Amino acid sequence: MAKARTSAPRADFPPTARTRVKRQGLRGAYDRETVYGILDAGLLCHVGYVIDGQPYVTPTAYWRAGERIFWHGSSASRMLRQVETGIPVCVTVAMLDGLVLARSGFHSSINYRSLMAFGHADKITDPAAKLAALTAFSERLAPGRWAEQRAVTRQELKATTVLTMRLEEVSAKIRTGPPADDEADYALDVWAGVVPVHSVVGAAEDDPRLKPGIARPAYLKAVKIG
Amino acid sequence: MAKARTSAPRADFPPTARTRVKRQGLRGAYDRETVYGILDAGLLCHVGYVIDGQPYVTPTAYWRAGERIFWHGSSASRMLRQVETGIPVCVTVAMLDGLVLARSGFHSSINYRSLMAFGHADKITDPAAKLAALTAFSERLAPGRWAEQRAVTRQELKATTVLTMRLEEVSAKIRTGPPADDEADYALDVWAGVVPVHSVVGAAEDDPRLKPGIARPAYLKAVKIG
Repeated sequence: MAKARTSAPRADFPPTARTRVKRQGLRGAYDRETVYGILDAGLLCHVGYVIDGQPYVTPTAYWRAGERIFWHGSSASRMLRQVETGIPVCVTVAMLDGLVLARSGFHSSINYRSLMAFGHADKITDPAAKLAALTAFSERLAPGRWAEQRAVTRQELKATTVLTMRLEEVSAKIRTGPPADDEADYALDVWAGVVPVHSVVGAAEDDPRLKPGIARPAYLKAVKIG
Repeated sequence: MAKARTSAPRADFPPTARTRVKRQGLRGAYDRETVYGILDAGLLCHVGYVIDGQPYVTPTAYWRAGERIFWHGSSASRMLRQVETGIPVCVTVAMLDGLVLARSGFHSSINYRSLMAFGHADKITDPAAKLAALTAFSERLAPGRWAEQRAVTRQELKATTVLTMRLEEVSAKIRTGPPADDEADYALDVWAGVVPVHSVVGAAEDDPRLKPGIARPAYLKAVKIG
């Protein structure tokens, strides 16, 4: 593997039996900077939970503040109604960064940043704390927009569930760099390298019903995901 | 919601209690074209499984052939070793297509394509069938590359586990289009619209150890993900 570390990584989140990266352990990371870096780049997570022995994996938007992640949705959502009861969850974030085309299929791979967090989620019940969490989500995506929008009503706040989970049992796994071929294969007449894959934020599209005379806000150019 | 259907969707995959989209049901789809369209666009799925009551969500590359999806990895992988025993799994694919910025936080949303498939995976034990599955994965990503690469050895094939799951209990959920604001909010002086997010395949990067004189193959320009 390229750019493999040779020294033990810093462990702000001490690895457990569940989070220690077993395969290709040098791709694992347990430090705050790496974990927060992945969390702050992504927008979609996958929440895993169990109902009657059956696993469910629900994709949803999330955000981070301090040592916590948050996700939200309609109070009627099946996922939120299950998870808010405090059942064990696994929250996974993964971003594809490229195809790694080695000289053999066996060593071909993908570059990625990923993270798994185990724990239990809590429902935020205090309306002010809920509002603060939703504001933080909006500000992460489009800083400055929250104050421009029509304010949240009491009924809307009630119809929204916000969950939070403390980051305690967390591991990151990252692969970067070129292929790592078998030494003999470097002599082959086969192209090898990386095909990068990026998440790109495009130019904003006005709502067809946008009121005339409203310009696109500057913060739209600051949106960054991935 | 924009572009909502008003008629019942075609159901090639008859919805069950687990797959019927309950919230915003008009975003749900159960037809082969939609399901295959999402599967063939994506590369990363999230596999959910349960060990001792604890959910795990592992991101991994997947591919589709006919009515089946496939994923693979090292025979030593914890996920594969668990899932190959036939325990219930949930395979989820989700792609972010944009931020939907409504005039209120409450109606702000994201555009996305997602899919959940429930079932059990089977391990492909026949070496020829395994090889055929791996070939299909390579051809989906970089058509023509498989024949150029150094051939798979018997030992490599043994060290690789390939799982497959029949698509039976599947639902897709999609959101597209502009915000759907409260009628009164359209009069507000607030910008609204969509910020698109795309997955973009960049220019291929040569392996630093690439043998001199090897040109980039034409199929690199055909790589399409997302």
